Amino acid sequence: MTRRDFINSTSASYASLLAWGLLAPAPAEAFNLPANGAITDSKTGQVAGRKVVILGAGLAGLATAWELGKLGYDCTILEARNRSGGRVWTVRGGTAETEIDGTPQTCRFDDGYYFNGGAARIPHHHQLTLQYCRELGVPLEIFNGNNEAAYLFNDGGTGPFANRRIRIKEYHNDMRGYTAELLAKSLDQGALDQQLTKEDIEKLVDFLKNEGDLNTAHLYKGTNRRGYKSEPGAGTSTGMVNDPYGLTDILRSGFMQPVFYNVGDYIYEQQTTLLQPVGGMDAIPKAFEKKLAGKIQFNSPVTELRKTESGVRVVYRKNGQPTELQAEFCVCTLPLPVLKNIQSDLSGPVQRAADFVPYIKTGKIGLQFKRRFWEEEDGIYGGISRTNQDINQIWYPSFGFQKPKGVLIGYYNFYSRAEVVGAMPIADRQKIALEQGRKIHPQYDTEFENAFSLAWHRIPYSGGGWATYDDATRRKQYAALLEPDGPIYFAGEHTTYLTAWMAGALTSARRTVTALHDRVGKL
Amino acid sequence: MTRRDFINSTSASYASLLAWGLLAPAPAEAFNLPANGAITDSKTGQVAGRKVVILGAGLAGLATAWELGKLGYDCTILEARNRSGGRVWTVRGGTAETEIDGTPQTCRFDDGYYFNGGAARIPHHHQLTLQYCRELGVPLEIFNGNNEAAYLFNDGGTGPFANRRIRIKEYHNDMRGYTAELLAKSLDQGALDQQLTKEDIEKLVDFLKNEGDLNTAHLYKGTNRRGYKSEPGAGTSTGMVNDPYGLTDILRSGFMQPVFYNVGDYIYEQQTTLLQPVGGMDAIPKAFEKKLAGKIQFNSPVTELRKTESGVRVVYRKNGQPTELQAEFCVCTLPLPVLKNIQSDLSGPVQRAADFVPYIKTGKIGLQFKRRFWEEEDGIYGGISRTNQDINQIWYPSFGFQKPKGVLIGYYNFYSRAEVVGAMPIADRQKIALEQGRKIHPQYDTEFENAFSLAWHRIPYSGGGWATYDDATRRKQYAALLEPDGPIYFAGEHTTYLTAWMAGALTSARRTVTALHDRVGKL
Repeated sequence: MTRRDFINSTSASYASLLAWGLLAPAPAEAFNLPANGAITDSKTGQVAGRKVVILGAGLAGLATAWELGKLGYDCTILEARNRSGGRVWTVRGGTAETEIDGTPQTCRFDDGYYFNGGAARIPHHHQLTLQYCRELGVPLEIFNGNNEAAYLFNDGGTGPFANRRIRIKEYHNDMRGYTAELLAKSLDQGALDQQLTKEDIEKLVDFLKNEGDLNTAHLYKGTNRRGYKSEPGAGTSTGMVNDPYGLTDILRSGFMQPVFYNVGDYIYEQQTTLLQPVGGMDAIPKAFEKKLAGKIQFNSPVTELRKTESGVRVVYRKNGQPTELQAEFCVCTLPLPVLKNIQSDLSGPVQRAADFVPYIKTGKIGLQFKRRFWEEEDGIYGGISRTNQDINQIWYPSFGFQKPKGVLIGYYNFYSRAEVVGAMPIADRQKIALEQGRKIHPQYDTEFENAFSLAWHRIPYSGGGWATYDDATRRKQYAALLEPDGPIYFAGEHTTYLTAWMAGALTSARRTVTALHDRVGKL
Repeated sequence: MTRRDFINSTSASYASLLAWGLLAPAPAEAFNLPANGAITDSKTGQVAGRKVVILGAGLAGLATAWELGKLGYDCTILEARNRSGGRVWTVRGGTAETEIDGTPQTCRFDDGYYFNGGAARIPHHHQLTLQYCRELGVPLEIFNGNNEAAYLFNDGGTGPFANRRIRIKEYHNDMRGYTAELLAKSLDQGALDQQLTKEDIEKLVDFLKNEGDLNTAHLYKGTNRRGYKSEPGAGTSTGMVNDPYGLTDILRSGFMQPVFYNVGDYIYEQQTTLLQPVGGMDAIPKAFEKKLAGKIQFNSPVTELRKTESGVRVVYRKNGQPTELQAEFCVCTLPLPVLKNIQSDLSGPVQRAADFVPYIKTGKIGLQFKRRFWEEEDGIYGGISRTNQDINQIWYPSFGFQKPKGVLIGYYNFYSRAEVVGAMPIADRQKIALEQGRKIHPQYDTEFENAFSLAWHRIPYSGGGWATYDDATRRKQYAALLEPDGPIYFAGEHTTYLTAWMAGALTSARRTVTALHDRVGKL
């Protein structure tokens, strides 16, 4: 690449800068589609009513019922479980679940302690999720995703970092320091002269000096940003800065494995600021539920989904008995691993999508401890520690600071790690969480009280964490879920490019409501 | 530097790694000095009582009284104001203050809205502050310091960034991308071969690819981490990523000025995680106050501080009348700009310290708005926007999300900027906050309701933000404040290497209590 290419490589940015004022997205607002002759008598304002059956009281189903209700539709949600929320699920004392082929589990956390088993964070740019929190009066607080005080722990390996936790702040500042030093050296030596002017280079080097906390010779010799051996204090306590790790030591450690990349802190969906409802993520489905009193039939798993001349016929179990419900339209929000096991008249393409779109295997365990040693002794208030062990991530709560006890998420893992751990008996999951976690927090040994674990791919009526499309499944399967299959519409995170996120479920609901309402208007 | 030097440059890290288990600091605990014969009758456990007068009910004075009280001392705090807390001050509706040469101001915020006029964040490693919150039962929440969605605004300049706000996430990710690209190129070209092995370089380049989101050719061509033109959504909305800015455009913009450096997010005292008391920082002094019922004399400004044969004699104004209090010891926590104006028998070195240790000029303004447009329209939930204008920083509240109204800190400035703005009449401070702030948030024009501003260097009984030592004042003046001047001890952030922080005031209190108690034990 020539210098000119380099400078011009982002020429499109001019256009986007100019357009900037126009490009700022309009804030999300309460969804208020215009009323529609087919539904509302324009003279009397009376609602005519059209019957819609919604499958699933997860976020997509709840939002669909809420929005269709505003427009005068007569909605019934059939929900297999005894609760709403689906994969938006907060685990508390008394929470019970039995996984496929599993033994029953009942959570024994003390009152007031909980963890979010499924959805756990709201990015600041997920306007629709935030809008529904506003509309439904769900109070929010910060979810602390990035924490410089949390740990990285590389299990195994050799050298100074083998089987040793380090603080993220040490890793961040050392890597920032050494890379800044190397680039400054390169620039000082004129190695990149062909790309930048002398003045540009001076400015960049000055930036790097500050970015990496380099000394006057442009060398990284450590920084107080990574912490102290002894903290500064009163009197003559000036503080003694920790020594940096060596660059080659870091490079040759296991910390260059992808599991330790900083990317988790940078990516759009996980960068600051993240939010969460006060008191647990299920505050959102509970708030919807309040608005939908009488419209949700719980403990009603769907077994058949049929097209009829006038719409749909849904068969579900109610008190163990097959029961039927007929409606003009159906909005099916069931996760595909659930849908594929339902007897139906669905089209071939839809059935193939249900069969072939993969869902992620993922698991979590909540561990209750007698005291919050991670706060008291490690100064960790929220955030995530990372390890290459099967437990993968430890999440510290961003709420309830300094309370007597605490619940942390002892593992949050994915794919093969989740598969291995999820396949274990409940007791063994707890055992592995404690055995691997104690390498990072030896206090586990004396402070542990009880645990509740889950594996989404083994949880009935979910069957996985979220849809994981690749290019091929987007190309081959995805389109079938976007159009109605006769009277049957589809919604849920799997019908979006925001898979895995509550915002996906919510935006899919609005899309489907719009499409259905539009069709009814033309009838 | 040779390659060997480079590798070995941080050899001390081995020692610190090995010592790691030993170096983890013990967690702060409640301070429980052993009782002491001179104070407590060891048989009866009865308290003998020794009279200590404490000057100032800021955090240092409050903690001193609390800890001395535990040991049986008879403490009285003289406080000039009608409130405790000193520079730990939460401004709410009804808060009143009149600055030196200023006009009276009374805050008109609606109920439940506030900002912290002084101390505003607790670093996760300030164990003593956190310990007192635990001991006193002060609930904590996250203070969101770093926010990728907040803005940078360079006033003036030319080029595409002139007078244009950009998101911090854009700046962060573009600079990370371009610097990763440049270093990867340099490494790929072998420019730094003498320092790293081939394997090290491969690992480092792989790290950089992920760090900067480089493409397979190791070029930075933008990243979705910096945001979208149109967000991904339901159906066929795949999302359209924003174009990156050009490197030379950024380098030639004003964003290379120190005010825009990322350093504020990295430094030890401001890196994640930061905390704050729920409901305002003054929850801490209020909690102390509760424990010290009857021991604080408010509205009692000290005018004289005298040494006597048996201890100290303090003259203060009470209901406008000069009043005296005698005690065996005095703990003086008054800020030096206040102390220097008090008639006293203090030694020459102490008086010179009071005269010569400079205090920072710093100011804030709280702006109440009709609605939280920064959340609704900008997706900003807490954090800080930065600008080279006099307003310097805009702080967004990390609490009360989605409430109908909101108070943000419209400026937080220092040194000459604070001097200029602080010297203005109250109305002009408001005007400049609105005029400069509207360049970042045009919504100011329609949403503003009322304001309350402060300039610490003009506030009676404070006289500045915090002590700002340089090497010379540490060498020449500091020592005089560390030893008792006869019966008079000194405490406060200015007697520590944690100046500006509540933890400084608190650790200074423990140091002074220890010294005083030790002396009494030897009497």
